[in-house]
Order: sequence, then structure tokens, then C-alpha cells
Amino acid sequence: METDIAIARSVALRPIAAIADSLHIPDEAIEPYGRYKAKISLEWLNARKSSANGKLILVTAINPTPAGEGKTTTSIGLADALRHTGRKAVLALREPSLGPCFGTKGGATGGGRAQVAPMEDINLHFTGDFHAITAAHNLLAAMIDNHIHWGNALQIDVRRVVWRRVLDMNDRALRDIVQSIGGVANGYPRESGFDITVASEVMAILCLADGLADMERRLGDIVVAYTRDRTPITARDLKADGAMAVLLAEAIKPNLVQSLEGTPAFLHGGPFANIAHGCNSVIATRAALSLGDYVVTEAGFGADLGAEKFFDIKCRQAGLAPDAVVIVATARALKMNGGVAKADLGREDVDAVRRGAVNLVRHIENIRQFGVPAVVAINHFYTDSDAEIAAIVEAAAQHGSRAILCRHWAEGGEGAVELADAVAELCDTHGGGFAPIYGDELSLFDKIDTVARRIYRAEHAVAEPSVLAQLKRWEDAGYGHLPVCLAKTQYSFSTDPALLGAPTGHIVPVREVRLAAGAGFVVAICGEIMTMPGLPRIPAAEAIRLNDEGLIEGLF
Amino acid sequence: METDIAIARSVALRPIAAIADSLHIPDEAIEPYGRYKAKISLEWLNARKSSANGKLILVTAINPTPAGEGKTTTSIGLADALRHTGRKAVLALREPSLGPCFGTKGGATGGGRAQVAPMEDINLHFTGDFHAITAAHNLLAAMIDNHIHWGNALQIDVRRVVWRRVLDMNDRALRDIVQSIGGVANGYPRESGFDITVASEVMAILCLADGLADMERRLGDIVVAYTRDRTPITARDLKADGAMAVLLAEAIKPNLVQSLEGTPAFLHGGPFANIAHGCNSVIATRAALSLGDYVVTEAGFGADLGAEKFFDIKCRQAGLAPDAVVIVATARALKMNGGVAKADLGREDVDAVRRGAVNLVRHIENIRQFGVPAVVAINHFYTDSDAEIAAIVEAAAQHGSRAILCRHWAEGGEGAVELADAVAELCDTHGGGFAPIYGDELSLFDKIDTVARRIYRAEHAVAEPSVLAQLKRWEDAGYGHLPVCLAKTQYSFSTDPALLGAPTGHIVPVREVRLAAGAGFVVAICGEIMTMPGLPRIPAAEAIRLNDEGLIEGLF
Repeated sequence: METDIAIARSVALRPIAAIADSLHIPDEAIEPYGRYKAKISLEWLNARKSSANGKLILVTAINPTPAGEGKTTTSIGLADALRHTGRKAVLALREPSLGPCFGTKGGATGGGRAQVAPMEDINLHFTGDFHAITAAHNLLAAMIDNHIHWGNALQIDVRRVVWRRVLDMNDRALRDIVQSIGGVANGYPRESGFDITVASEVMAILCLADGLADMERRLGDIVVAYTRDRTPITARDLKADGAMAVLLAEAIKPNLVQSLEGTPAFLHGGPFANIAHGCNSVIATRAALSLGDYVVTEAGFGADLGAEKFFDIKCRQAGLAPDAVVIVATARALKMNGGVAKADLGREDVDAVRRGAVNLVRHIENIRQFGVPAVVAINHFYTDSDAEIAAIVEAAAQHGSRAILCRHWAEGGEGAVELADAVAELCDTHGGGFAPIYGDELSLFDKIDTVARRIYRAEHAVAEPSVLAQLKRWEDAGYGHLPVCLAKTQYSFSTDPALLGAPTGHIVPVREVRLAAGAGFVVAICGEIMTMPGLPRIPAAEAIRLNDEGLIEGLF
Repeated sequence: METDIAIARSVALRPIAAIADSLHIPDEAIEPYGRYKAKISLEWLNARKSSANGKLILVTAINPTPAGEGKTTTSIGLADALRHTGRKAVLALREPSLGPCFGTKGGATGGGRAQVAPMEDINLHFTGDFHAITAAHNLLAAMIDNHIHWGNALQIDVRRVVWRRVLDMNDRALRDIVQSIGGVANGYPRESGFDITVASEVMAILCLADGLADMERRLGDIVVAYTRDRTPITARDLKADGAMAVLLAEAIKPNLVQSLEGTPAFLHGGPFANIAHGCNSVIATRAALSLGDYVVTEAGFGADLGAEKFFDIKCRQAGLAPDAVVIVATARALKMNGGVAKADLGREDVDAVRRGAVNLVRHIENIRQFGVPAVVAINHFYTDSDAEIAAIVEAAAQHGSRAILCRHWAEGGEGAVELADAVAELCDTHGGGFAPIYGDELSLFDKIDTVARRIYRAEHAVAEPSVLAQLKRWEDAGYGHLPVCLAKTQYSFSTDPALLGAPTGHIVPVREVRLAAGAGFVVAICGEIMTMPGLPRIPAAEAIRLNDEGLIEGLF
């Protein structure tokens, strides 16, 4: 079997100017980064805002398992298939994070014949967006401690600094630190720590801003600390917002690349899908909608986390109305949801598929609650049996959705034509029914409880009095209208990663809440959430190197 | 008076492809980064290595003062003047560091009519080189702690981990930290800290490597820690070298930009000039030598630190033989060396210039010890009087050097034609006499002592027995042949920043030594050296923002 990287390297990419030209983007609106990447001018895109008339298709998935679902691969395959069938399709996807590439993860640019390219660049530094976000985030952190060091005119309570630092690196040693030790010249010692860059509120802001001015306003709104009497201190109070916006002025321009079949793809931004909303930038989605007739985008993790946030945070804030949803499932992942161990996934087990399909069915029902039609994409794996596929099709049909077998991994866009036709039909015949699952006017805790009950199918959410008091203080301070962003394990509808399938009767405990005033949501942490990954016992980095031809080995 | 940024914005830059074309660099050897920046293919440059026949001109300076000397400005003005007089000149300069731009520093791209452009890009993220260095450095750090966490098979003594982390940010709070607190999952708590990225050994390695393979070998040689019995542990032992090289595969390609007069300029790398050698990359210098007849390059700080390291570290390692040296001086800075306070520099004071000229004279004598001819460039400031200039010319002449008044700041290359003619004549009539000031075979301490006596004109160097024992251990371990890199204050020949002029009779105390086995030198720290700057009371960042036209304000 050919590896992803071998397939990618066998395809001759088109110059990025030709891809831009296929979207009628003029030369002066393109900033090339090498031969196959470009940033697109915001001014030019802004002038086209009113023509954002494309259909918006969200690709989401069942709860992820170690078996893999292939959400990005399916997004790319679907867009290639739409294009293959004569439709003007554009992709809007997330940029991968650098740090995890050196752990276990491998790349995040699709697979098989459904990939975006150049994959080495995209998976590593790409156009520098994440580095810019890291710099902007850490400049704010430095300005906080600098302000305190020089007299603390704003009377920041050093025990109540909530802005940590970030690095795009898996480095557990930085999760919790004591900083500013070593004497007077280094400031006031206090505890703090680092998160990975994708967990930065600056990342979420870049992805939710509708332009430079909105981004700068949001950066200014970031709450970095509190005074002793709990008055919020913002980045604007520290006069950090302007310099942060300057650091992000290039990063906010969307990046254009291509799929191996030449479909234009905007890859822009990539916030975590637990403590943040997990979608590519609003700017990239809008750009794609103004340039294409069908825009394929994706959300992080499974539909319980990713699609819910796409709808309730991104679409709500940006005024987007999705036209159709694709739920990616695989026979292998459903077998795991049906109780089969990973080592046994190669054996046919139709009953296990049927048992595990409860997970898929619940996601179908959930999507329907948002008023958007859904179709299931069965991402084909060579060990799948016809009977297993039939079981998935049957389960979906019983709940009113089509499930379509797709072979884009092996065949590219041609392998997903049936899916493309079905999705295009949904877009063209449905639409207009979308609404978020809760209104702005609900209390913050009621919003959390609504998601817990209606999406996670829990009995209800619970929280300690101190958490409820914190939510109340934010409501009093004017943040009560914000949507909520629940952070929980991606492996289960519940907060227990071992509860696969479609659990009910569970409770969602809210351990901690965090205000992301700039991004515009309140994070509710439910269970253990890791915001700085570690490297595994044998990190992928050990095998990554340049070979004698100067090509990268071991990254994928 | 027009500001630097106003002058820069009034000039229409040429497309970078046209600049490359002026050097006969073919299209396929160029990777554009936007319209006015490009990276040049290493393969293409390697194929031309044998034609590196240009003359190499080093621009250095008297000891820096708060009055400013204008070394980068003079480098650019000289190159523009060489070109203005029909000579094929190319610049090879350092890239500025991002972090200090938010403190007090302003940009580092020259000034007046002698600037390289686009200055906003160059001073901020540029082509991402420093971000790549930060990532490579911190990946190694993460792999060290990860190795210890998972069982420490290499038996690293956690008290003897010498590899810190880096950020390109002025952040005093990170100078000294306790890391890995918070419990078992976060590793073994220990003290560590962050330096600014320009202080990273990875930066020095990128700047001294002659290609990808050499860079990877040097990365592998980095000593990151010791075992309990003081056996060095290297990056190669941790299998980090390959992944680090992958992270640096783009960064190692030299960046091409242009001066406001269209002179091609390679800006590549920028190590500290105290704990590292302070010069742009060997690759950029070689590229310029293969493409131009006259290559103007610069070294950090004054000639005691910068030129000495350029000769004894960079030229020694890379086999470069400089043809001429330009020592930049200003009447104002010499007045400060002659005892005048900064507030009084606007008043004519010929006697103070004469007194301060001892600093200039000593640098002239020092350069002569390396066998390279020197000329003095008097960087004109509008308050300078004719008598003050005459005093400088006279002082230089008494010691066998010409001093030439230059007006490139106000007039561009046309204002430095006399300097250009003089430098070109030196290059064409002298040459061949260069030699480092000490041989490889001297002991490490004798090398330090040689620099202290012959360049700093100290009585001698001193060190505690523990420091001498450490040097001895490195000699026993096979590092004795390395050159030394003395880190001391840049303001004085001595280790006391208040001792201006030309002090004698002082002692150089070596407080600490560090092994940079990958870069290939031993650092001797003499006095207090800050490797992580802090922000000032009112950081420049507070005034930096995008204006309504989307242009950056406050950065310069």
C-alpha cells in the first residue's frame, strides 16, 4: 500500500497562482509563500463580502476512537467529488498544530488520494500563523508581569492572573511552573504555566474575528487578571491590544493551498475543540463562501463537541447558516463503540456494528435538533465487509438519514461522487432551518445545562457553589449573553471516556469555568482536560529526519 | 525631519524577482515570501560555492554608547555607495530579533536613506527563521524532560541539565523558573529558565553551519546535560537532531531583500554578540561572495566583541579571509567616551572628541593585529562641527588610518562615495594578511587570556578553580581545540560598563563557562550578562498599533 506521503509526492501540484486564478482571485490580491501557498488580501476579500452566497456544508463525525474516522480526509474527498461532478467547490479547513507532529499524531492533511498539499509545509511552520499567535499571546503575558514589576498601577492581584503562556510544543514540564524566581530583577514569584498554542484565546479570537478591527477589539476585551476586589483587567487596560494586532496582521489573512486534485482549500486557524470552538476561521469560511458555490468545512472531534460548537459559537457569532451536515463514520469505529477491542477490528462483526451504531444514530438525531439536514459518509476501509456496511446503512435509514459508502481515500474525488450528489441535493432542496440550540438570553449555567441535556443526553449538569458564583459574577459584569463552550472528553457523550455508544443517565460535572471575553464565550471544564499535551515514551520526533535527497522522513 | 518609516514608505520597492535577477539568480532558485522577500535555494547556491570570489568587507564600530553609532546604517550606505560607483555590491546582514521591538529598541534595518526593506516585515516575523529556531530549541528541551519522565535510560542527572528554553520575547519573568511542578504526570520538578531566541545555541549553529548536513551534525553535537559522573549527553543521544534539522530546513536558506536603493541584501540569522558570535550566517556570507564583487557584512556591538568574534570564530570556522574593515564612529559617541553627558552632546566640544578618540584608536590598533586594513567611517550627525570631524580625522591619521566623513543617512549611497572608493582600494591593493589572534592548540584558558590581554588590554584574565577545572574537563573530553567566545559588557573594553575610553590595567574575571559544542565554541562569561531582557517601564508595545489605513505605527 502506498503511504500518504508517497502519494502526495507523486502528484505534480499546480502553482498557487493558477489555483487562485481558478477562483478569479487577481494577482495583486495574492501574497505567495513559496510556490504552493499564498495568503489572500483581506481588502480584496472584504470588497466581496456581499457575494458570500455559497452553500455551507459541515463535515463532522461520530465520537472518535483509536480506530480513526477520517473527517479531514472525507472533507477533502467530498470537495474533490463536488468538483469532479462539475460543481464549484472550495474547502475551508483548520491548520494543523506543529507540536503534536513530534508526539504520536502524524500529519493532519487528510490521507490516501484525499489530501491537501504541500503536506510537509502545512504540518510544520506553514505560513507562520501559529508562531504569530504564540508571539502575540506571550507578548501579552510579558506585559502583565512587566506592569506588575514596574509598580502595578492597575492593582492586579498577582494571585488572580489568569493569562498563562503558550508554546506550540508538547511539553508537559511547562504545564505548571513557578515563574519570576531569582530575585528582585525578575519580578514577583508566582505560579503559572504554559498551554499549547491551539489552546490560546488568541487563536480562538483570530478564528472568530470578521476582520482586523474586530480582531483588535476582541484582543482588547481579553480578561487577563482581576484586582483584589475582582474587577476584571483587560489586555486593553495594559495597552497590549495594538501590538498584538500588529503581530497578527499577516496571520489573519487566510491561506490558500490545494488538494491533490487541485481543489482550492483555505486552511486557516485551528483552535482546540474542547476549551475552544474547534473550527477554522470565520474569515476563511466567508472567503470560501464568496468564491465557491459549495463550501466544505469541518469541526473538531465528534459532533457532540465539534458540531455543537460550530453551530452554537461560530455560526451564532458570524451569522452563518449551514445548509447540510455530513457525519463521518467507519465500520471499525462503530465496532469499537459496539465493544470490540482494537486488535480485533479486522474481523467481521456485524452485530458489533449494529450495537455501535447507537453512537451514530444519536449524532444524527442531535444534528436534526439544529434544523440542518444530515447525511452519513461511511469512510471505507479495506477490511470492511458488505454486511457491515449494510448494517450502517440500515441503522441510518431507520432514523431518516442516508448513509453512503465512500472510497475517496483509495480513489480520490471519484470515490465520493454519490456522497457529493446527495450533499448537493440536500443543500439545494433544504436549508433555512438552522437555529442554535439555546438563546443568548438564558443564564450561563442554563446554557451549559441545555447542552448537557439535549446534546450529551445527561440527566443534567452540576457545579459547586463557587463555580455558580463565578458565573453569576460574570453575568453581573455583562458577560451573561455569551455562548458557552463545554470542554469534556471527546471519546464519549458523557464525561467518562470509557462510556462508548450512547450513554444516558449520566451527570455532567462542571469542574471549573473560564471567561474568554475576547473570543466571546465562557468555557465550562467538565472532567480532566489537558491543555498541554506531553510526548509519548518514544516520540515520533526520534524518527523524523531529512533523507539524503533533502526530503522529510518520519513525519507522517 | 522625515522619519525612517516615512522615508521607507516613500520608496517604491522593486519586486524581489527583479533583485534576484540582478544577481543572475534564476527563477527556480527563488522561493518568494510575499512580494519583497525571498529565500534562495541551497542546492543552487551550493553549485556555485567555488565561485565565491568577492571581496569581504567587515563593518564594525567603536564601543557603543547611548548616542548611537549607526553600524547597520553605515553598512547599507557603503553597499549602496559601492553600487552607486559602478561596483557589484551585496549586503550580508543579521536579521533583527522580534522581542526587543516591543521594549525600547526600535527596528534594526538601518535609518534615513540607508535602510533595508520591507522594514515592518523584517523587524517582525520576516520569513519565520527565528520562530523555527525557537521551535527546534524547545523541541530539544521537551525531549530532555520527556526522556527523564519515561525512565531516564541515559541516566541524565536532573541537577545537570544545561539546556534551557527560549522565546523571542523580552520576558524577565521567565529568566528563572521551577518547572514540572503539579504532580507525577508533569515530571520531576527542577529549576530552569528561558533565554531570548537570539541567545540559543541553535541560532549560533544555523549561522555557522555550511549546509544542511553540517547543521544536522552540529545539532547532534549539542551537549544538553551531564550524567552524575559528568559524562556529556548530547542531542544525538536523545535522537533529537533529525527532527530539529527538519524544523530548520527552511530557516537555513538565506533571505534576500533589498536596500531602498535596490542593493541586494541577504539577511540571515542573528546570534547575540556576547554569549554567541554575533554575525549573520556563513551561508549568507558565502552566497553574497559568490554573487557579488564586494560583500559588506557587519558584526555585533563594538570591535572588541563583534569583530574579534567575527575573526576568531566565524572566519576561523568558515575559512573566510576578510579584505577590509570599516570602523564606524560618530563625533557624539566619541564625546561620550571623552566624558560628556548625553544631554550635552549637542554642544561642540573638540577636546572631548580628542579625549574620546582613544577608544577609536585602540580599535584601529586591534584590527591591525588581525592583519586586515581598516578605514574609519564617521557617520555624520547634523550637530557635528567641522572642527570635531577634523579631530577624528587627525586622531585616525596619527595611527595610520583614514577617517572619512559619510552622509549616507541623509543622502543614501551618494553620501558615502568617498568611503566606498577608499574601501574598494583597500580591498584591491591589500589582502591576504588575515589570521586569527590565537591558534587552535592553545589551552581554553590561554585563549581567553589572550583575548583579554591583546584585545581588551587587560592585565590578564582570572577564574575560580572550579571554572578552570571545568575547562580542563572539556579539554579532556576533546573540546580543547574550540575557539572561545567571551561575553562581557559591550560598553567598555573592560568588564565595567562605566569604564569608557581606553582603559588599561584591569582584570577580566571569568565568572562562568559554557560549552557550545554544536556551535563550536566555549563561552566565557565575564561580568553580568543578561540572556533574557525585560521590558521597560513603558514598553514600546503600548504605542504600537495598526492605523486606519492598516499601516503599522509606533514600531520604529
